[in-house]
Amino acid sequence: MARFFKKRTENKGLAPGALVFIGQKRLDKPILNLHHYNGQGYKQEALNEDSPIGDFPNENRWLNVVGLHDSDLMDRIQKQFGLHPLAMEDVMNTGQRAKFEEFDDHLFITLKMLQFNEETGQVQSEQLSLLFAEDFLISFQEQEGDVFDPVRHRLSEGRGMIRKRGADYLAYALLDTIVDSYIYLIEHLGEKIDDLELRVLDNPDESIVSEINTYKRELHFVMKLIKPVKDLIAGILRSNSPFIHGKETLPYFKDLEGLILHTLESVDTYRNLLSDYLNLYHTTISSKMNDIMRVLTIFSAIFIPLSFFAGVYGTNFQYFPELQYKYSYFIFWGLILIVAGTMLWYFRRKKWF
Amino acid sequence: MARFFKKRTENKGLAPGALVFIGQKRLDKPILNLHHYNGQGYKQEALNEDSPIGDFPNENRWLNVVGLHDSDLMDRIQKQFGLHPLAMEDVMNTGQRAKFEEFDDHLFITLKMLQFNEETGQVQSEQLSLLFAEDFLISFQEQEGDVFDPVRHRLSEGRGMIRKRGADYLAYALLDTIVDSYIYLIEHLGEKIDDLELRVLDNPDESIVSEINTYKRELHFVMKLIKPVKDLIAGILRSNSPFIHGKETLPYFKDLEGLILHTLESVDTYRNLLSDYLNLYHTTISSKMNDIMRVLTIFSAIFIPLSFFAGVYGTNFQYFPELQYKYSYFIFWGLILIVAGTMLWYFRRKKWF
Amino acid sequence: MARFFKKRTENKGLAPGALVFIGQKRLDKPILNLHHYNGQGYKQEALNEDSPIGDFPNENRWLNVVGLHDSDLMDRIQKQFGLHPLAMEDVMNTGQRAKFEEFDDHLFITLKMLQFNEETGQVQSEQLSLLFAEDFLISFQEQEGDVFDPVRHRLSEGRGMIRKRGADYLAYALLDTIVDSYIYLIEHLGEKIDDLELRVLDNPDESIVSEINTYKRELHFVMKLIKPVKDLIAGILRSNSPFIHGKETLPYFKDLEGLILHTLESVDTYRNLLSDYLNLYHTTISSKMNDIMRVLTIFSAIFIPLSFFAGVYGTNFQYFPELQYKYSYFIFWGLILIVAGTMLWYFRRKKWF
Amino acid sequence: MARFFKKRTENKGLAPGALVFIGQKRLDKPILNLHHYNGQGYKQEALNEDSPIGDFPNENRWLNVVGLHDSDLMDRIQKQFGLHPLAMEDVMNTGQRAKFEEFDDHLFITLKMLQFNEETGQVQSEQLSLLFAEDFLISFQEQEGDVFDPVRHRLSEGRGMIRKRGADYLAYALLDTIVDSYIYLIEHLGEKIDDLELRVLDNPDESIVSEINTYKRELHFVMKLIKPVKDLIAGILRSNSPFIHGKETLPYFKDLEGLILHTLESVDTYRNLLSDYLNLYHTTISSKMNDIMRVLTIFSAIFIPLSFFAGVYGTNFQYFPELQYKYSYFIFWGLILIVAGTMLWYFRRKKWF
Amino acid sequence: MARFFKKRTENKGLAPGALVFIGQKRLDKPILNLHHYNGQGYKQEALNEDSPIGDFPNENRWLNVVGLHDSDLMDRIQKQFGLHPLAMEDVMNTGQRAKFEEFDDHLFITLKMLQFNEETGQVQSEQLSLLFAEDFLISFQEQEGDVFDPVRHRLSEGRGMIRKRGADYLAYALLDTIVDSYIYLIEHLGEKIDDLELRVLDNPDESIVSEINTYKRELHFVMKLIKPVKDLIAGILRSNSPFIHGKETLPYFKDLEGLILHTLESVDTYRNLLSDYLNLYHTTISSKMNDIMRVLTIFSAIFIPLSFFAGVYGTNFQYFPELQYKYSYFIFWGLILIVAGTMLWYFRRKKWF
Repeated sequence: MARFFKKRTENKGLAPGALVFIGQKRLDKPILNLHHYNGQGYKQEALNEDSPIGDFPNENRWLNVVGLHDSDLMDRIQKQFGLHPLAMEDVMNTGQRAKFEEFDDHLFITLKMLQFNEETGQVQSEQLSLLFAEDFLISFQEQEGDVFDPVRHRLSEGRGMIRKRGADYLAYALLDTIVDSYIYLIEHLGEKIDDLELRVLDNPDESIVSEINTYKRELHFVMKLIKPVKDLIAGILRSNSPFIHGKETLPYFKDLEGLILHTLESVDTYRNLLSDYLNLYHTTISSKMNDIMRVLTIFSAIFIPLSFFAGVYGTNFQYFPELQYKYSYFIFWGLILIVAGTMLWYFRRKKWF
Repeated sequence: MARFFKKRTENKGLAPGALVFIGQKRLDKPILNLHHYNGQGYKQEALNEDSPIGDFPNENRWLNVVGLHDSDLMDRIQKQFGLHPLAMEDVMNTGQRAKFEEFDDHLFITLKMLQFNEETGQVQSEQLSLLFAEDFLISFQEQEGDVFDPVRHRLSEGRGMIRKRGADYLAYALLDTIVDSYIYLIEHLGEKIDDLELRVLDNPDESIVSEINTYKRELHFVMKLIKPVKDLIAGILRSNSPFIHGKETLPYFKDLEGLILHTLESVDTYRNLLSDYLNLYHTTISSKMNDIMRVLTIFSAIFIPLSFFAGVYGTNFQYFPELQYKYSYFIFWGLILIVAGTMLWYFRRKKWF
Repeated sequence: MARFFKKRTENKGLAPGALVFIGQKRLDKPILNLHHYNGQGYKQEALNEDSPIGDFPNENRWLNVVGLHDSDLMDRIQKQFGLHPLAMEDVMNTGQRAKFEEFDDHLFITLKMLQFNEETGQVQSEQLSLLFAEDFLISFQEQEGDVFDPVRHRLSEGRGMIRKRGADYLAYALLDTIVDSYIYLIEHLGEKIDDLELRVLDNPDESIVSEINTYKRELHFVMKLIKPVKDLIAGILRSNSPFIHGKETLPYFKDLEGLILHTLESVDTYRNLLSDYLNLYHTTISSKMNDIMRVLTIFSAIFIPLSFFAGVYGTNFQYFPELQYKYSYFIFWGLILIVAGTMLWYFRRKKWF
Repeated sequence: MARFFKKRTENKGLAPGALVFIGQKRLDKPILNLHHYNGQGYKQEALNEDSPIGDFPNENRWLNVVGLHDSDLMDRIQKQFGLHPLAMEDVMNTGQRAKFEEFDDHLFITLKMLQFNEETGQVQSEQLSLLFAEDFLISFQEQEGDVFDPVRHRLSEGRGMIRKRGADYLAYALLDTIVDSYIYLIEHLGEKIDDLELRVLDNPDESIVSEINTYKRELHFVMKLIKPVKDLIAGILRSNSPFIHGKETLPYFKDLEGLILHTLESVDTYRNLLSDYLNLYHTTISSKMNDIMRVLTIFSAIFIPLSFFAGVYGTNFQYFPELQYKYSYFIFWGLILIVAGTMLWYFRRKKWF
Repeated sequence: MARFFKKRTENKGLAPGALVFIGQKRLDKPILNLHHYNGQGYKQEALNEDSPIGDFPNENRWLNVVGLHDSDLMDRIQKQFGLHPLAMEDVMNTGQRAKFEEFDDHLFITLKMLQFNEETGQVQSEQLSLLFAEDFLISFQEQEGDVFDPVRHRLSEGRGMIRKRGADYLAYALLDTIVDSYIYLIEHLGEKIDDLELRVLDNPDESIVSEINTYKRELHFVMKLIKPVKDLIAGILRSNSPFIHGKETLPYFKDLEGLILHTLESVDTYRNLLSDYLNLYHTTISSKMNDIMRVLTIFSAIFIPLSFFAGVYGTNFQYFPELQYKYSYFIFWGLILIVAGTMLWYFRRKKWF
């Protein structure tokens, strides 16, 4: 459950803007990659945490930082690019809610990348922060491995418009791959959820309830992380920052908004499905239980009067006329069969079994 | 369930605006029909995928394209009409949420056509996209067979104002027939749902639960696809695009908004009905189960003490005064009948059966 | 259930604005009444469907049309008063959602008149449409008999301000009597619902569930028809049409808005009451069932061990010491009574009955 | 239930603005009190229904009218102060929803005063209407006895700013005491609701369900009447009427808004509590029922096989080896005890009792 | 429950702005601390309730008052700083809803500080009010002990920008530590709630229901107090008061808004978890009960027919062929075993146990 709520406790009482890493350290040394490109060319270079970050006039720069725990590095980046201390504080605190914020000198986006861990059966999140202005974009992530390879390929191969546009288009391209990965995740969970339906209808056992609850919780977790992304994109669409080139880039973000709405509706659909499954499970179980109890009760109800008749003929009355009669025993069995048969016929006619 | 969420997976990481078909290929070769008309005349010609699309000054053109998988054709149409790459990407991705988008050179509408498949008992959807500007409208659909024949007849026979108005009116006319087909679908589902009521009240079996759940799911599916159409039309009404002639065409879209609200309310009504049926089913079943259990329990409760009395007179005590008495056996039966009668009378007075 | 959703099916694909009657024909020939009046005088004349509709300068005209199926008459009225084709189409389609629409030359209001039919136990609706401009108002209704007599009396007797004001005030007066009739209907249903409470608390049977469901459905039906009236009036209040004299007439419509809000809240209150009754019914029933089952189970639990003891003394062991003893039988009965008494005392102390 | 919906029936079809009393006449003759005051002095005089209402230049007047049924008096007041006929109609109709309305010459406020009647256990409402302009305020109430004494004292003793401010401040002061009385009422109901908790946890009986339902209904009633007061105050805050002195008086109304929000949230809290209690009741009851059924069923399950064994040894087979054996009877009892003990041990180990 | 709704009763009818303490007196004498500082220096002095409050030109002052019951002191502070009477009334009434209000000469914030009391298992609240203008801030709290020590340290040690900024930044810093303490509280409650999950899945007893209900109530309480803080901060963000330096301070409040949204979502998440646990508990319990009833009923259903057979052979018919046969007794036992075995096999095959 710790996933639901990252601890901010240690931060209590620090000055706002203090560069303190809050989260789980997932790698030893930060990894830095600098891509610089313009309409004409593209180059990528790996930096280590001490090497200076080059300045390339007339080129756009994309600095990708993996690992957030090195305060010195963070401080250096903040100073070089003139980033707002609050933005940097949020970058280093991995318990952020997805949001878009406008500062005077740059824009700030933070959101979660999501991945389904097949082993634990849980969705894992990793925080991504983007800071960008006209000609640079800095992306911060917690660990190696991301969904941005297609963007890197498009950059290196010069496919599409990505080299010709500014940092806002690059930010869009990165967000787009993340939203795509959300959709992939929902599809994946959705297939697992679809599989539950047959199991619910067919002889369900109790384990399915906790399985349904697990998926409900995962979807709740996903919903909680994705929902603010809608506001994030709405914020970009409403923004009139000079760093977002309305005429050219806004249609792309508008498209993204449609995708995220679609995703949220799908999460909702699957949550409804799970609730329906739970109801179906309860109906199935209680209907089966009813069947058992009904049949058994009918069973008892038939034998209880028969036992009574046997009891009557087991009494030791001195003067018991029937007992002397030679065929009494056979008549007794006949009586028993008639009573049982009548009851069966009656219960059946009443559609009780 | 795949209907709920069309796969976008294969698209992961493509450059935005890339013309890639996402969906199920439903026919071999695309079918193209070009209608051109003005107040004076009307002509329709079938094109094949290589033939050039004519340009008719002072005439409106309606190009109807069936089949979305031919990227070359799509590319050619995009270039000839100057369509936005994002719009074309959405046309070819059949997993779109209904939406209205304004581009500089044209407007874009995408939504679903719905049809009830009697065999599978499921609602099937087909994506329709409309791109239009002042004097042309291009409609893209996935397969042959649509609900537009009345519009074609009105065009060919010159009924109504359709030939005299621009592409916005044609777009309205197409949307209107689609919304009409929604209403027809809801009516059709509604009649099936109405039929359930009697079956629920009259001796219901378990199969009705899964049937109710099926209809709930279909209505959820329909709701999910129709609900964004409301926003789509609201978007058109808010738009101040030069391609929509406010004074003349907006009243028609306003009318359409009333229809779609009406449709959504009806879907809601039927969903409420289904929930009521489900509750009614549970009440009926549990009330029937209660009846059975009550009657059987009363039955047992009467015979259990009687068996006890029979047991008492079956004991083998040496000195058992009553057993010697001549009429004991008959008195025993009298006792049994009195006890049973008293209990029946008591239970009846308590209104237990 | 057909009441929930008037068929539009036959209309599929007609040109918008086509004058086609959709609904149930409720009378043979349309009935027309023309009232014309001003501050000085008032006259009313009955027209038949062919007679021309007079033009009275400096007078307001109210044309009341009963029966919507005569397309020729409709066409004539449309042309004489210059009505918008979409408005006329809506007038003739009795499956409209209540709405207010502004056209250039006149305003359009459509809503439902409601009446409780004691025989069927259902609420019946009839569509009323009002079209008005500065000095005329045309009202269309489906059948004879309405709630407008008080307005007619005020007109003929010159009571209140009705003769001195324009068509907007007349429209208000008509809407006011309709909203009054809504309130009367809710009061009437409310009294029936109030009567249910005692029956639910006192020995309820299953029929009450279907009765509660019936009222829920009727209230849902009423809610569905009345709710859009709120938007209708809000639309009038927002309107800046020259046909509505803001300073003089708007306070009246504002008053009407308060009434309709009040009505909707009352429908909601009664729906909540019905849900509470349903819960109360289930509590009452299950509590009664629990009582029965508990008492009967206690009954059985007492006799089952007694039968065992009788069974023990009914065994045929050769050496059975107690059986020879003279007072065994009486001791046996004593034992039985002590066991039964102890159990009763124990169950009572545990508050089980 | 009549409290939920005051009859407007008799009003059907009256001209709007007609002065007709709708409600229950609660006193014989109306009582009038006129307070006039300014920064320098204050005087109060009781009027009877025929005496003229004085005019005091440079003084504020507060006319308090108790009893609404005297149309002549109402007519006289309306004319003297130039009140709008719609406002006067609403004053005399006691079935109003709380609202604030602006007329050209004065403002109009109507809302309910609430009181808990210990005898009937119901909340009673009385309608209060305020009409005020720059220097006069007229308050109409249905019966004697109100919550305004503190305001009267502040006026007569000159405490606070009340004498120095205009009629808007007086209106605020009156509304403030009414909102205070709402809070007192909720506190009072809240204490009664809190008392229920212990009774629910401790041995609850069925009567508590109907008691919980009663409180739910009363809170629903209170909510229905108080909720529109929020809109009323919001309306005042939005108003730019010259009769409300924004700079001086608005902070007070703003404060009132906070109070009414607080009150509504508290009603909501108590409604949630009641729902929790109801659930707790059902859990407690069903858990108790489960205990009883489980124990009794275990009881029966132990004796039924024992009876079978007794039955076996009661059979009359000629050749029955065990019966001849001398210690059979004691072995039989041993067997019985072992079987019973084993079952008890097994059930206990399974934690069934 | 008194925590839910602080009594305002005693206040009924007081003049608005009267300085009357409403709440629980938590300490004997008020404690005053005055901090004054600017970019250059910082000094703190403890005052007693009679000593004058110094005036320090070119310095910011923070006056911290603990204890609200001393009306004379309150009056003196109000006069010295020119505070609005309504603000002071709210400071002294500890039953306030969190809110932000703008007055001409200063701003006013009131909200709750929350703390979990391990002994009572309840969340305790203490009211904090902040009044500030350009260069002073006065904070009022109910008792000693708060969460502001980090702010005091930053002030005394000159860390961060706190000494260089105005009173608005100080207000932000105080609010920030309070929101941090909310987060800490939710984390703490969340850990306790997480612990419940295992106990629900593993052999749950009834006590867990009341425990879940307790946490639900605490979260409801927390939600009720924190939710208005969202509006409070939104109010600050919307404000254009000269005392809030938009460019410099607003980003900090914007950051705070994100935190409070995050907190509210977490409360919501935990409430959902608790509801899921409650459902899980009911499923677990009813599933266990079903198991017991099913097994026991099967048990009885097997022995009841066996008892019947024993009864048959216990009858005393004179002519009873089987009884004479030598091996009858052994055949009888065989029959019993076959019948019992068949039933067991049948029930098992039907998956009834």
